[in-house]
Parts: sequence; structure tokens; C-alpha cells
Amino acid sequence: EGVPVQTANYAPLTPLLLLERTAKVYPGKTAVVYGDRRYDYAALRERVHRLAAALRQLGVGEGDRVAVLCPNSPPILEAHFGVPLAGALLVAINTQLSRPEITTILEHSQSKVLIVDEDLEDKVKGLEDELDSLEHVVIAKASIEESSGASPARPANQTEPPLGDAPVTGIDYESFLLVPPLEVDLLQIDERSAISINYTSGTTGSPKGVVYHHRGAYLNALSEIIEARMTQRSVYLWTLPMFHCNGWCFPWAVSAIGATHVILRKVIPDKVVALIEEEAVTHLCGAPTVLTMIAQELDRTGKGFPRPITLVTAGAPPSPKVLRTMEALGAEVLHVYGLTEVYGPFTVCEWNPEWDGLSVEEKARKKARQGVPYIGLGDLRVVDRDSGEDVKRDGETLGEVLMAGNGVMTGYFKNEQATADAFAGGWFHTGDIAVWYPDGYIELKDRAKDIIISGGENISTQDVEKVILEHPAVLEAAVIGIPDEHWGEVPKAFVTLAPGKQATAEELSLFCRERLAHFKCPKSIEFCDLPKTSTGKIQKGVLREKEWAGHASRIN
Amino acid sequence: EGVPVQTANYAPLTPLLLLERTAKVYPGKTAVVYGDRRYDYAALRERVHRLAAALRQLGVGEGDRVAVLCPNSPPILEAHFGVPLAGALLVAINTQLSRPEITTILEHSQSKVLIVDEDLEDKVKGLEDELDSLEHVVIAKASIEESSGASPARPANQTEPPLGDAPVTGIDYESFLLVPPLEVDLLQIDERSAISINYTSGTTGSPKGVVYHHRGAYLNALSEIIEARMTQRSVYLWTLPMFHCNGWCFPWAVSAIGATHVILRKVIPDKVVALIEEEAVTHLCGAPTVLTMIAQELDRTGKGFPRPITLVTAGAPPSPKVLRTMEALGAEVLHVYGLTEVYGPFTVCEWNPEWDGLSVEEKARKKARQGVPYIGLGDLRVVDRDSGEDVKRDGETLGEVLMAGNGVMTGYFKNEQATADAFAGGWFHTGDIAVWYPDGYIELKDRAKDIIISGGENISTQDVEKVILEHPAVLEAAVIGIPDEHWGEVPKAFVTLAPGKQATAEELSLFCRERLAHFKCPKSIEFCDLPKTSTGKIQKGVLREKEWAGHASRIN
Repeated sequence: EGVPVQTANYAPLTPLLLLERTAKVYPGKTAVVYGDRRYDYAALRERVHRLAAALRQLGVGEGDRVAVLCPNSPPILEAHFGVPLAGALLVAINTQLSRPEITTILEHSQSKVLIVDEDLEDKVKGLEDELDSLEHVVIAKASIEESSGASPARPANQTEPPLGDAPVTGIDYESFLLVPPLEVDLLQIDERSAISINYTSGTTGSPKGVVYHHRGAYLNALSEIIEARMTQRSVYLWTLPMFHCNGWCFPWAVSAIGATHVILRKVIPDKVVALIEEEAVTHLCGAPTVLTMIAQELDRTGKGFPRPITLVTAGAPPSPKVLRTMEALGAEVLHVYGLTEVYGPFTVCEWNPEWDGLSVEEKARKKARQGVPYIGLGDLRVVDRDSGEDVKRDGETLGEVLMAGNGVMTGYFKNEQATADAFAGGWFHTGDIAVWYPDGYIELKDRAKDIIISGGENISTQDVEKVILEHPAVLEAAVIGIPDEHWGEVPKAFVTLAPGKQATAEELSLFCRERLAHFKCPKSIEFCDLPKTSTGKIQKGVLREKEWAGHASRIN
Repeated sequence: EGVPVQTANYAPLTPLLLLERTAKVYPGKTAVVYGDRRYDYAALRERVHRLAAALRQLGVGEGDRVAVLCPNSPPILEAHFGVPLAGALLVAINTQLSRPEITTILEHSQSKVLIVDEDLEDKVKGLEDELDSLEHVVIAKASIEESSGASPARPANQTEPPLGDAPVTGIDYESFLLVPPLEVDLLQIDERSAISINYTSGTTGSPKGVVYHHRGAYLNALSEIIEARMTQRSVYLWTLPMFHCNGWCFPWAVSAIGATHVILRKVIPDKVVALIEEEAVTHLCGAPTVLTMIAQELDRTGKGFPRPITLVTAGAPPSPKVLRTMEALGAEVLHVYGLTEVYGPFTVCEWNPEWDGLSVEEKARKKARQGVPYIGLGDLRVVDRDSGEDVKRDGETLGEVLMAGNGVMTGYFKNEQATADAFAGGWFHTGDIAVWYPDGYIELKDRAKDIIISGGENISTQDVEKVILEHPAVLEAAVIGIPDEHWGEVPKAFVTLAPGKQATAEELSLFCRERLAHFKCPKSIEFCDLPKTSTGKIQKGVLREKEWAGHASRIN
């Protein structure tokens, strides 16, 4: 009531202040485990502040962009804090992208500095000469030296690193950090200023750079802590790439609660299982394909999980089979759903204790639903794509999922038209098709672009896949629409069999016809390995491309 | 980057939206247990929206104040949501206050409506005639009728309740709710607008009304969930009065996570223990005296806690003895500290896993510290009261605790001078004296007004109390300074012995002298019951008043 805003009763919501708190509360607690290296939160904070100082010395300032092309490793974790601390926006690039795709992103974002892992250096060699905006390239070694750990004092015989406004390329990341830490007044941050840009596509003429802000990152971090039930005793294994939607905000969440980051460069099944055991891992995130891979490895070694573990999964609805298997092995599966535009996960299949008494099958069906918005993120609706009205909450009527709230992006970087389109009517349009249940939970049925229209009927490819995945010989499956003279489109299934298992196309066809309306059953079945993105998502576009070659539409 | 703010990516931080989410996610989950009555979140939401509608019908509008004088019961819980939903500020009044004190608060806050429990009606009878501002009084029955539960439809034979702008007194709370629910656009709330006023004192000429805002209440709710590790399966027992700092924000936190409120009108030991068992209680809050009372009752019945339970305690540092006892009985004690000005708890003795290996004694000493700020609330310092500089982090130097951040009040209602004083230098001055440890944790040593200055030496009364409480015959103790011709002040102890235990003043005196510097030992010891506030805090002011009668200073 008339009291002026003072520092005393206001602070911006920013993950940077969350790290400051953790470094104060748990300075000696292990922050990072990376191969043989481990360092504590005091050291992480110091490295982050040194990174910010080093970036400032390169001339990076308020609102500039700093790109990172690294697999999971300390530099990309540290960049989640150090880049915004320098006032800049983090542009974390998918390491699977090609040189032209990377070039497009660097150019569109006008990134001034690129931090690249030595294993990926070849992909970007010479780019600083091609791109006016790119001034400096920093190389991160795959392994960090013991000497670069907690509070590295500059060795007496070390000269000043070659910094300044002159272009610098090829400086080693660890040498780069050898500057006095930057200390800034974090209370001056505008909580709605940008913290990062995540590109959803680098392939087409107009790449979409999704802008996140400090407030959204902060609320996502607290929400992940609450939904995944992390505590200061948690140990988080990095199977999800940090370049993917800023690692679903877990770089900020895990640091905020003072848990430990176990960082893995590459998802290798036996390594994952060994780390879960050795480091007493309590949490990890991954697509269902990652879960499947872990389950297979455990099956191979005849073990379950050594202690309670929470697996946060998204990217595709986990099949009831995956859910059953993982829970039998001692894991709790948390099914979440989101998109790059909403900082990664936005909904969670919040478990309702009323369901405890259901049968295993019914439980799995409940858990395969995408659920409801996270506690701190916002609201959602499922609407008819033509009328824009809410669909019936009957678990059957298909509609598009819309989202709104603090968990939604600022917008697309330098793309006002795409932003306006995505936010039409004051809601973010996901392009995902779902049904809405009477209890308010949603269940995804397809990407708008994946859904099959066959003789005027909608077929959810995921409904068909779910049935095929129930077959005991099937490991993975993807269904797409293929051209058909009579029906326009008909479903085709691509199937990978489980190791050592056998099944014929006829058997699977019969299996489907016993469980699905005939028009939904695949008209042909092909056995093969499925094309996947770096984050483990099946690339239906690649499958469609082949099938639709020579046809006018349906290629993406 | 130039993208305008849209509804799509913004929502105000308010606990009202958290209840909306819970009512959508868990409509059928038990929200409230109150004696024989239970109702679910759909019903709680509906009752809250009816309350807001009923208040609007009385002419309550944006920024008005609505007072509540109720013990823990559904009306005061519902008022935490219904009053701000109507756009008004909740003024929850301590039920232990006298009629003149209540009058002062109603007058200072200019409350338009008062909701009073029938058992307290006599205290406020006729006040609406004495106070120009007070227009309407609503009476809440001690027990709510079965018929008033989920979705109460107005009975066909019921006439319109006598609402409107004409003064209404004595309307029954349940009848009051029989109006169509109010539906408003919660996205229009300014997150920094006021949600409530909590009076710290109604006794003196200038009462201090502490103003909370929606953003602070929201961040406190999420922080309580994280720090107390509540989930949707939690069951919260209301031993803490909801009128006390808005129940430390637990009305909002428990509802936000979809846990169950078990509401207790009065803290009666055998009732508390019975409810913990019957309702499978997982969390409760209370002063150490409340914990002591529960421990005694469990001891009497020879039981421990039936299942894991978290006890959040504050108001005074729990003695190592209380901590040891409760943990032996199967409880986890979370030691927090705060003040009305910071929405209740602001710091927590965050347990560092590195301390797991310490001895029981050392663990208790760690846990008796007040610790560090909650994850979402802000920052703190301990400063020299003269220089304003940070004290040494040596665990010995005394200084005043300062706090800042989103967890600090907006200010004192209609009291700009007191607000400016409290916020001097951009930090909230707590008036609490503490030491700062090298690890960043604080430990309270006294209220500034309690500390004893004896022959020029500071004596922390809490240090002396801690020693006395270690004596096996002692249940409770309070130490104050009493006048002394030679030293100015000397310590005196007031002690309550445990039931069936014996000790003489000489024994206790010797016990202290073996453990404390002689100048810190009580010069006299009196055995008696200790005067306490309604929230279980020992009233040292009352003790001092008696001892200092006839002296010029030291009475408060």
C-alpha cells in the first residue's frame, strides 16, 4: 500500500541466484562428477564466474549471444550459468547437426563466441572466417585436467591469456578460465530478460530460435525439483543432452537443490548401468528409447536397479510395456511431455493416489497419458483446430494442445511472424494432437503432421504403435501414412525386433487385426532399424521421405 | 527480443492459481478433514469461490480488508483463498487477543467484514456499532454441517440470503456461502499486490500490520513444499494456528501440492497423537513447546510415531534434547526460523549430508542452528549493529540478522516510517542477534531486547537456557536479565520441571557452573509454569515486567 519497491523485498527470479545460494550452503558438496574428475559447488561457482569474466574480456556484453557445441561435459554445464552471468544469451547447439546447419544457427543468432568440444572442432573449422559475427572460438578438451579443479590459482609461470578484442581462435577452455572471477550485482537482472536461445531446426531457410528468460528458467527449475522430488541427496545422471531445451532446465534445477551432476559424454548402455551403481544415481531423464536401452542392459546382466531411481521420460509416450518393465526393475517412471517452446517438459502424468488399487494394465494406461501442467508452469487446453473451442473431455475427441503461462517461451528470436502465429489468441499452439479426459488429463495421439487421414478417418499413429509394441517380439515400432490410390493414405509400420526374438509380418498383422479397427491396421510392415535424432526420437520424416518420393505432399 | 508480453507466456505468481490447478488435477482428493467432516478439492474450490462471491455481494471490493477471528477451522482456511479471490486482503487475527486489542486491529486495518467463530463471538459483540469501518459480521459455527459439503446446491425452499449493501450482522457462514461461485480472470492479478495483513502487535498505540503480496505467498508455498519435501501423498496436521503469519504459508503450500489438511481447533495432546495415527499424518508445524508436548504424550502412551513424520519447528531454537528425543521416536525435525515480516519461516537448517557421520551430540548442535535462507526466499547477513558491516564468520561474534528478497514483506500497513526504519539500507532488520559460522549458517543467540548486558559483557539468554535444558529433570526454562546494583543486570532462570522429576535450585546452579562461564550462570532460579503466547512462545516480557517493577527500563 504505497510502500516503494526496495531491494529489501525484491529479487529477480533467476537461476543464477539459485547457484549462489547452493555455493553458500553446500560449498564442499560434490557438484560435478565427470570421468575421474570431481569438483564441488565452491569450485563450480568459481569456474562459472571465471567463465563470465573471460567472456567479458572478449568483449561479450549485455544481450550478446555465446554458442556452445559440446556433448555433455563441464563446459556446457558451466555455460548455463557463466554465459548469462556475463549478460549474454546461451545458444546450445545440437552436436548431431551438420556444418551447414550449425552455420545457419551461428549466423541467425549472430553468436560472437563459440565454445566447441575438441571432438567436434572439425565441424566448425574456419567458420570464424566465413561468419562476420563470429569473433572468437574456444576449444574445450574432452577431458579436463586435475589442475583445473577447485579454485585454480594461476600458475606463477603462466603468462596472461591472449584475450582482448582481437579475434581469438583456438584458445583452450581451461586456460580461458584463468582470469579473476567476475562479480556482478545479480539483483540488477531483469527477470524477463533472455537467458538462452534453443534452435528447433537448423535445416530450413527460417530457423526458429526459441528464447527463454530468467523467470521461466527459475520457475522451471523449482518445478522440476518438486515434480521429480529431488533433494540435496539426489544424484542426477546426464543421459539427456544438455543442448536439448537446456537439458529440460536440469542444469539449473540440479544445481539449485545442491544435488550432484554425473556427466556422461555419450550414452553407452554398460557405462550408464555402471554409473547408476557406482555413483548411487537417483534420477535421470531420457526418451523411452533410452529407457528401453537401459532395460535391455539390465536384462543382459540379470540385474535390477541397485536402489530407488526416478526415470523422467518424454519425447514419445512410453508404452505400457516399457512402464511395466522399468517398474518391475525397481524404477519409478515419471512421464512428462513438452516441447522446445516450453523449456522442455510442461506437463506431467501426476500420479493420483486413487489409482493405487488399479490393475497393472490399468495403471500403465493411466501413466501413458501426458497428464496435467507442472505445478509452477501454467495452464493447458485441447481445442478443435477449426472452431478453436475446447473439445469435449471424453477421452476420444481429437484436438490441438494449447499451453499458456510462465513456462512458455518469450518468443522466436528475430521472427515476429512465427511468434505471433504460435501465440494466436493468447495461447501457444503446440501442433500436437491429443484427447482430453474427464479428469482433466490429456493423452497425445499424434503430431498434427504425423496423423494419418485414411478415407476421411483420422488414425493416430501412436495408437497403432502402442498395439504393435505389445507384441512380445517387438522392440520398437513407428507407423506413418503412405500414399494409397483409393484411401489417400494408409498406415505402414516399421518394426525393430528384440534381440533373439522372431516374428513375421503376417503374425504382427494378425496381432493388430485382433486389437484394432481394420482401417487402422498397417497395410504393410517392414523390419528395419529406425532412424533417430540425437535425442533418441524416431524420425518419421525420414521414413515418410522415402515412401512419398515422387508424390507432391506429406514430406517433412 | 521485441516480442510483446502476451497472456500466452505470462501468469502472475499467486497461490490462487495453485489452488485452481489442484482442483483440476485432484478434484476428488480429500482436501480437508475436520472432525467428522471431510471434503475434496472440488468442494474446497467451490466453497472458496462461493465465499468470494458472498463477500462481493456485501460490497467488498479491490483492496478492501476482511478480518477473520477463528481458531483453525474451514472458514479460516477458505478465507486464505476466498478473500483475495474477492480482491480483498485477509486480516487473520490472533484468537488469544483481548477485545481492545482486536478492536485496535479492526480499526487500523479498516476491515469491512469480520468472520468470527461462534466460540469467540462474545469478544466482538457489538463492535460493528462501535467501528464505522466494520459493516458486516459473519458467524462461523464450530462444526460445519454435513449438508454444506461438496457442491452444495441451494435447497429449493431456501430464500435469498439477506445480502446487499445494508449492514448484515450475525449471518451464518454456511448460509453465507449459498450463492453462485464467483469466477474471475486470475491472470489480471498484479502479483505484487497485497494478499493479506498480519498484525504483530495489537497492544500499543501504533500496531504493525505486516503486508504480504501474492508473489511472496506463491514463492513461500513452493519453497515450503521443497524444504519440507511435501508430495501429493502428504497429510498435514494443523497444530500451528493459521492466524499466525498465515500459518507460515502452509494453507497455500498444502493446497498447492494437493496434500490433505487435517484441521484441529485446539492443540490437545491426546487428540494430536490420535490424529497422527488415524489420519496417517506426515507433516506438522509447531514451536518446540508443541513438540515437547507431543513427545510427552507419546512417552505417556509408550509409543513412537507410527510412520515417518516431518516436524517443522520454529519460534525458539529446539534444544538438542528435544531434537534427540523426537528423532528417537521416529520423526525428522526440520528447524526453521523467521518472523511475521518474512511470511513466517525464512531460514532452514538445511541438513548437509557431510554431517551424517557426526556424533549424536554434534548432529544436534548442527541442527539447533537456524541455518540458511530457503531456496526461493532470499539472502541474509549478520551485521555489527554499530558499523553495519558483516560480522566475522567465526561462530562467536554477535550481530543483527538482516534479510532481503522475495520472502520479505511489502511493508507495514499505513506506517511508512516503521517500514523505512525496518528496511534501512535496503535490508530488513530482524532485531534478532546471531552468530555467523564459517559455513554460512547462522545461529540465533537472542532477541536484541532479550540479551543481557552484565558488567559490560553480552550474555545470550539462549546459551544459558540450552545448558539448563540439558538437565534431565528440566522440561522448560527461560532466562532473563534482572536488575543488579553492581553488574547492572544478572541472569535469572525460570524453570519448569518434568512431571515426576525433582531438582533443587542448588543442583541446577552447580550444573550450570560446570558448563558455563560463571558470569553467565543464573544468580537465582525460580520453579514455576512459564507464561506463553497462543503460539507457544515463552513470554519473557511478562517475566521481566515482574522483576523490573519499579525500575526505569527493561520492561517490554
